[in-house]
Amino acid sequence: MSELFDPMLAAGPVRAEVDDTAWLQAMLDFEAALARAEADCGLLPAADAERIAGQCRASNFDPAGLGAEATGIGNPAGPLVRALSARVDEQARRYVHFGATSQDVLDTATMLVSARALDVLLGELAGCGDALARLAEQHAATVQSGRTLLQQAQPVTFGLTAACWLSAVSAAREQLSTVRGRLAVQLGGATGTLASLGAHGPEVVTALAGHLELADPGLPWHTDRSRVAELASALGAVCAAVSKIARDVTVLAQTEVAEAFEVDAGAGGSSAMPHKRNPVAAVAAAAASAQAPGLVSTLLGSAAHELQRAAGAWHAEWRPLGELLRSTGSAVAWLRTSLDRLRVDPTRMRENLDSAGGLPLAERVTTELVEVAGQGQGQGQGPVGRLAAHDAVADCCRRAVAEHRELAEVLAADGLVGTYLSRQRLAELLDPAGYLGSAGVFVERALARHRAGASPASRDRRQDSEESGS
Amino acid sequence: MSELFDPMLAAGPVRAEVDDTAWLQAMLDFEAALARAEADCGLLPAADAERIAGQCRASNFDPAGLGAEATGIGNPAGPLVRALSARVDEQARRYVHFGATSQDVLDTATMLVSARALDVLLGELAGCGDALARLAEQHAATVQSGRTLLQQAQPVTFGLTAACWLSAVSAAREQLSTVRGRLAVQLGGATGTLASLGAHGPEVVTALAGHLELADPGLPWHTDRSRVAELASALGAVCAAVSKIARDVTVLAQTEVAEAFEVDAGAGGSSAMPHKRNPVAAVAAAAASAQAPGLVSTLLGSAAHELQRAAGAWHAEWRPLGELLRSTGSAVAWLRTSLDRLRVDPTRMRENLDSAGGLPLAERVTTELVEVAGQGQGQGQGPVGRLAAHDAVADCCRRAVAEHRELAEVLAADGLVGTYLSRQRLAELLDPAGYLGSAGVFVERALARHRAGASPASRDRRQDSEESGS
Amino acid sequence: MSELFDPMLAAGPVRAEVDDTAWLQAMLDFEAALARAEADCGLLPAADAERIAGQCRASNFDPAGLGAEATGIGNPAGPLVRALSARVDEQARRYVHFGATSQDVLDTATMLVSARALDVLLGELAGCGDALARLAEQHAATVQSGRTLLQQAQPVTFGLTAACWLSAVSAAREQLSTVRGRLAVQLGGATGTLASLGAHGPEVVTALAGHLELADPGLPWHTDRSRVAELASALGAVCAAVSKIARDVTVLAQTEVAEAFEVDAGAGGSSAMPHKRNPVAAVAAAAASAQAPGLVSTLLGSAAHELQRAAGAWHAEWRPLGELLRSTGSAVAWLRTSLDRLRVDPTRMRENLDSAGGLPLAERVTTELVEVAGQGQGQGQGPVGRLAAHDAVADCCRRAVAEHRELAEVLAADGLVGTYLSRQRLAELLDPAGYLGSAGVFVERALARHRAGASPASRDRRQDSEESGS
Amino acid sequence: MSELFDPMLAAGPVRAEVDDTAWLQAMLDFEAALARAEADCGLLPAADAERIAGQCRASNFDPAGLGAEATGIGNPAGPLVRALSARVDEQARRYVHFGATSQDVLDTATMLVSARALDVLLGELAGCGDALARLAEQHAATVQSGRTLLQQAQPVTFGLTAACWLSAVSAAREQLSTVRGRLAVQLGGATGTLASLGAHGPEVVTALAGHLELADPGLPWHTDRSRVAELASALGAVCAAVSKIARDVTVLAQTEVAEAFEVDAGAGGSSAMPHKRNPVAAVAAAAASAQAPGLVSTLLGSAAHELQRAAGAWHAEWRPLGELLRSTGSAVAWLRTSLDRLRVDPTRMRENLDSAGGLPLAERVTTELVEVAGQGQGQGQGPVGRLAAHDAVADCCRRAVAEHRELAEVLAADGLVGTYLSRQRLAELLDPAGYLGSAGVFVERALARHRAGASPASRDRRQDSEESGS
Repeated sequence: MSELFDPMLAAGPVRAEVDDTAWLQAMLDFEAALARAEADCGLLPAADAERIAGQCRASNFDPAGLGAEATGIGNPAGPLVRALSARVDEQARRYVHFGATSQDVLDTATMLVSARALDVLLGELAGCGDALARLAEQHAATVQSGRTLLQQAQPVTFGLTAACWLSAVSAAREQLSTVRGRLAVQLGGATGTLASLGAHGPEVVTALAGHLELADPGLPWHTDRSRVAELASALGAVCAAVSKIARDVTVLAQTEVAEAFEVDAGAGGSSAMPHKRNPVAAVAAAAASAQAPGLVSTLLGSAAHELQRAAGAWHAEWRPLGELLRSTGSAVAWLRTSLDRLRVDPTRMRENLDSAGGLPLAERVTTELVEVAGQGQGQGQGPVGRLAAHDAVADCCRRAVAEHRELAEVLAADGLVGTYLSRQRLAELLDPAGYLGSAGVFVERALARHRAGASPASRDRRQDSEESGS
Repeated sequence: MSELFDPMLAAGPVRAEVDDTAWLQAMLDFEAALARAEADCGLLPAADAERIAGQCRASNFDPAGLGAEATGIGNPAGPLVRALSARVDEQARRYVHFGATSQDVLDTATMLVSARALDVLLGELAGCGDALARLAEQHAATVQSGRTLLQQAQPVTFGLTAACWLSAVSAAREQLSTVRGRLAVQLGGATGTLASLGAHGPEVVTALAGHLELADPGLPWHTDRSRVAELASALGAVCAAVSKIARDVTVLAQTEVAEAFEVDAGAGGSSAMPHKRNPVAAVAAAAASAQAPGLVSTLLGSAAHELQRAAGAWHAEWRPLGELLRSTGSAVAWLRTSLDRLRVDPTRMRENLDSAGGLPLAERVTTELVEVAGQGQGQGQGPVGRLAAHDAVADCCRRAVAEHRELAEVLAADGLVGTYLSRQRLAELLDPAGYLGSAGVFVERALARHRAGASPASRDRRQDSEESGS
Repeated sequence: MSELFDPMLAAGPVRAEVDDTAWLQAMLDFEAALARAEADCGLLPAADAERIAGQCRASNFDPAGLGAEATGIGNPAGPLVRALSARVDEQARRYVHFGATSQDVLDTATMLVSARALDVLLGELAGCGDALARLAEQHAATVQSGRTLLQQAQPVTFGLTAACWLSAVSAAREQLSTVRGRLAVQLGGATGTLASLGAHGPEVVTALAGHLELADPGLPWHTDRSRVAELASALGAVCAAVSKIARDVTVLAQTEVAEAFEVDAGAGGSSAMPHKRNPVAAVAAAAASAQAPGLVSTLLGSAAHELQRAAGAWHAEWRPLGELLRSTGSAVAWLRTSLDRLRVDPTRMRENLDSAGGLPLAERVTTELVEVAGQGQGQGQGPVGRLAAHDAVADCCRRAVAEHRELAEVLAADGLVGTYLSRQRLAELLDPAGYLGSAGVFVERALARHRAGASPASRDRRQDSEESGS
Repeated sequence: MSELFDPMLAAGPVRAEVDDTAWLQAMLDFEAALARAEADCGLLPAADAERIAGQCRASNFDPAGLGAEATGIGNPAGPLVRALSARVDEQARRYVHFGATSQDVLDTATMLVSARALDVLLGELAGCGDALARLAEQHAATVQSGRTLLQQAQPVTFGLTAACWLSAVSAAREQLSTVRGRLAVQLGGATGTLASLGAHGPEVVTALAGHLELADPGLPWHTDRSRVAELASALGAVCAAVSKIARDVTVLAQTEVAEAFEVDAGAGGSSAMPHKRNPVAAVAAAAASAQAPGLVSTLLGSAAHELQRAAGAWHAEWRPLGELLRSTGSAVAWLRTSLDRLRVDPTRMRENLDSAGGLPLAERVTTELVEVAGQGQGQGQGPVGRLAAHDAVADCCRRAVAEHRELAEVLAADGLVGTYLSRQRLAELLDPAGYLGSAGVFVERALARHRAGASPASRDRRQDSEESGS
């Protein structure tokens, strides 16, 4: 946490879901739910469980003190259990943390913190999706130059550009939503056998999962970090989607392109250059999303937990997972801000397109030329093969550029091209609005996928495959 | 590819699925399927499509020559299309690669190569799962010391150790299998509109997907790299699972632990030290799996594809994805070898356990002491609270270690402990075989999950959510 | 190695320095130098050493066969020693590999392969530096718009742009050159004591270093991977420098910017769009340089070598180090190609600059306004403070943009600004060529640093190049 | 910052060097030094500079407020300059931040914060070095089993083990020290030309560097991130060194190895298992050092700063650099704690060694056998070649293991071995204390390198420490 940097680097509502209070409460929620689950299974009186649960409020505890004591055992769960025990009467005290180990507390808290952060994040992503859907719909007919390798290419619509962004956001939401459903409680005791619970272990785990609204893992997963890996990967996928959109916004906002820009009363002004409108939100989204690949790799690289508890790899997860949640939260929040601020300039889009003088549509002339010239000769065996057509059109393109002439004019005057295609037909062929293929269909599909993702039911789609094994 | 290093670093059958021939054939499979799909949609005569498809065999082309020419356009698809066109007659030639762009070829080939590699990999993983299931079953009752932070802790069974390994492998298989179902064709033409296919674009994409047995993506995904990210993450998860098992094997094979070791006629011998039996396969598996985090991060970090085709980020994917498939293949192949070679020494496991003199079970004595002493006092308000019991037992442990005495004996002689617990009861409490909790249940669950994963139906579980949008 | 992809992904002369033959020869060079070093120290007859050395040619051995046998011991050094022994007579055979272990062979070969690759790479980087120096010199007076966050800002010269690129290349060369000097032989025997060499160990190491022209490490470094980490980092730094230049080239080559572009007869043409000139070389350089961060992280993450030889971490280094050398070689080779192809368009630079209508120089007007208005009022206590001046100018900027008027005209007509600054003075203030600050000095310094780096002496000891430039 | 986790994850004195106050003060130090440097060059009255500098105390400003405002421009420098301006009188106000841009403030503050953190870190590393030097000296004669791939191998001394650790720490210190000297001020103005300083730019930069005791970079480095990359790499190298030592400590502290362990009154106790002594400090050091590879990759991956200021890549550096400094500080602090707590058990080391029954020294018997048997036969053409000797000894080893007999006895009874080597000679050959090669020399060299690094002069210029050791 940094008061100085967090408003930029950890923007949005996810930040509060991963702060000290959130972690402390999640650990306490585990202890409360554990006591209740064990009471459900008859291992302790329900009244004792409630007396324990009654103390499980973060405000009862001092994070700094717990943190200082954590260095003794290596994690804050031990000190927390001691502090919690001290707050309950002796009768209930014997049941505090009963059968659990520190890693059970921390691992389940990790899942709870992540679950709560993901719920917020999914909402933020849905907001981004809504904004993108609006853009895709509004600009379904706004013609824009396509650009490959940053060179102008065949036309698209800005609606399609936005639809492709939306589609990636939908994919990220779906993946995140699936992972959300996989987040599970961890309870194994000292080495994963739940020995001190006798034969009640699995039953307690199921009850615990019920209390915490997390999945029942079937097996303790203290040294199977696949959940952490999958969670990290899904957050990485969100950042990947954000990074693409943010990059595109900065390019479209470039002075020389100027097809879209962020407009905000309070932001983006440069003190040195009063005329500039920096795409600050997209820049911040890009910077936040760039954190993910390294953090994901740290988490994947920490999977080799030795035997029943790792000598380092477990402790190595806490920082990067927290940072990844914060950074992803920031990336999505800034993206949402950027999209809210985004103003699109269809006129400029058309100007940029026209400045290419029809060159990106030369392919279309080639195709028609082959077809027309071929038809005339029967069975495509005529003298105007694809290569000859291609060469003729390419030569016209080169001349149009070199001589600063209209492409349509040069084509019409060409010996080969002009023979088969009229000036008017050439103008039609070079009109970008007439060469948009399935852009409209694709926009519709992206919108439909977004709408499907908005229904709560879509979150439950993936079967929790572990259950089939339990 | 390296003849010198690949047998170590790219072991197993996946290597052949990602070599030049595999890539070339996948690109050609795209061209053949594209022609057929377009013929299905009436865009070209079926006979032409078949003449094109008839040439689409990798052996017809020279990878080195195509690679050399690839530097002109920046990828090998362009030269391949030219070479393919040169092999078909002029009539069919006009339809070669019709409506497609280089990225369509490469992206679809990437999916095809990955799909074929994943099919092989899933088989290898199933083999690992089978070997682990055998170990878990055979050793369900083999008592072993649990170890946390590499310190001896409460007992487990080796069956449970193997079951936890198995569970992680099952999770990795399921994730990989889900991703396998998401691999989709890419067809968008120059900028993703499929303009040259007129209104037939979506129809052709669907037909193409059918011919290649890949998913229909709904939208072109040329700049939405979520599939690549998800594929990379799933491979990373496989390597994460392998890394944990491989690390454990090397620890169990340690001279001083010696609970398991790899036995192989031809391997593991050290020329300098003829007595050593190095766990070469586990070491190789560990090394291979360590490649994944960096490769995944490179792929996640390459997601910001500018507008309709990236100026670098797309080209940046090919090497790490190929390497990730190869490394994951090697990791799984070596793990399978290691598990096939693994010999377990239950006697040594018991010896190591006994060397701890019952100390890891001290907790159990504490628990019983609290219970017994508490019951005697009614309502748990008696003088022997958990803390007092814990302190007494801990003191006995310290004395047993310091004085090299049997823990049971020290406990029996203790003023507090001896009062409540008999020598015989203490011996029972300190017997590891009697304190295994739910180890057996967890082994059964892991086996059930493995068996469920073995059924082919389990691969189709995840709904392809894009389809709902199409 | 891939014939299909390497021309794109592993371009340039470094590739040949890291292939199988290069590795095999480096291992053999170690064996030859070891025998000679031991002969120098009287441990074996010089004639025997020469008979061993006489067989140490890569062409005598079969990499595929050695690779296949490598799986037994876990590395190719063991099989190679056996194969080499089989080629020498029995008298000399007893001295083959005397006192060494497999890791000594592989680690020293790694250093030799790297040293040879670095020598080539340093030459390639020098070539890039020469090309950049030419650009910086030729365009020292070519005015160009500066761009921050991709928005037009205060003017620079293209010479300064190129000088900043050059400076980063010089820094990378210097760092790489330093690391080159640190590459050292490894000789420790089975566990790093060189026990079988009796008291001669250190002496043999020194002689070995002499024969191989590598550094003498003082201590065996088999488990101190700082050299590998430093080598990886230096290669990462080279790629970082390349990535920045490549990105800039793609932006400058953008259709809408068009200030520079790659020109090549054979390359960059798009079959679909004959008019396009894709910056293929810069794109390939960007893609290659993007490989480095992940590979560096894999190498840094493999540093925890257990005790006297790692159970996995050592084997994990080979692939990423080889790939890093190849990718860095490719990045630098493609950068060199891009720079050789680069054509600069000073006219377009001026047009882009003028299109901003002087807005980026508004700051200059503010500064002068504060100064002039302040002077007139004595001691700067006058009514025109910096804020008032800033506000007035900013208001003029906004009006100029909104009303599509010349900024100079709006400023001259402004009540406050026009009072203090004449139309002519305003024109001077808004002339970018008159507001280039120390651009020229900085260009000179970058050139001086480059020239200093060109002298062979600079490789021996690291010049603190900043000092020479200041 | 987290009160709950930082004592574990950000231990030691570096944490305070990278907190909000430290950043704020560093930015203010820049503003103060800039004013003074410009006064030195006659650009403003010295009294004005002092009035500005007089306000540059962090306690004058509110980090939370500045952070909140930072979202407008995208960084906290802008709001800070406004707040600072508001604190000085109107006469001095015009000179606040004169000629500088936000990135100048942040980049120079980054260097200052890093410089201060590195000074502390170098002290901590020196402390680690001192502890390691003590261990290496004290245990120069403590025989220990060498271990390769975690299998017992030829003997070493624990002194050598510690010396190898020390050597890696010395290398890391030297690299960090070199980088410390490279940290430089950044001053370029809006686009790197220092246009508003007229011809005084370079002069001001030099004066600024003098005031801040940082290097003069010669050229603005706003888009040349080589310093950041080199700094990151050096921190990564420190963590690499720590990770190896920490891993080794956890292995040596393993219950079954038990050759060393951490002893601390307050730490390492397990509530569940009172007898355990967890190597908490080494575990924490391992976890902290595992953060580095991912963070370094993020920083290297953020090098492609577009043109004169990046649209995201610059902002992407702040978090990982701060985290890398914190994590490295924590890694080194925990390592120091671990080394301070470390107790070595030479008796156990000898026991572990003896348990191998001389097998790791079999090579020595082979070597002597070849020599003795060979000499007797003249010219090495005798019947006992190396292979025959190797086979005979290996066979004895196998029998000794299989039959649980003493190796010396089996060897003496062997037909071939017993003919040439007496029982007594065999005992001598199998004595680990007599087969330590150059272990003592290497310990001395590591100590010498450490002592050389301890002198303050060594920080000014990089010693090529290998040379002094050879």
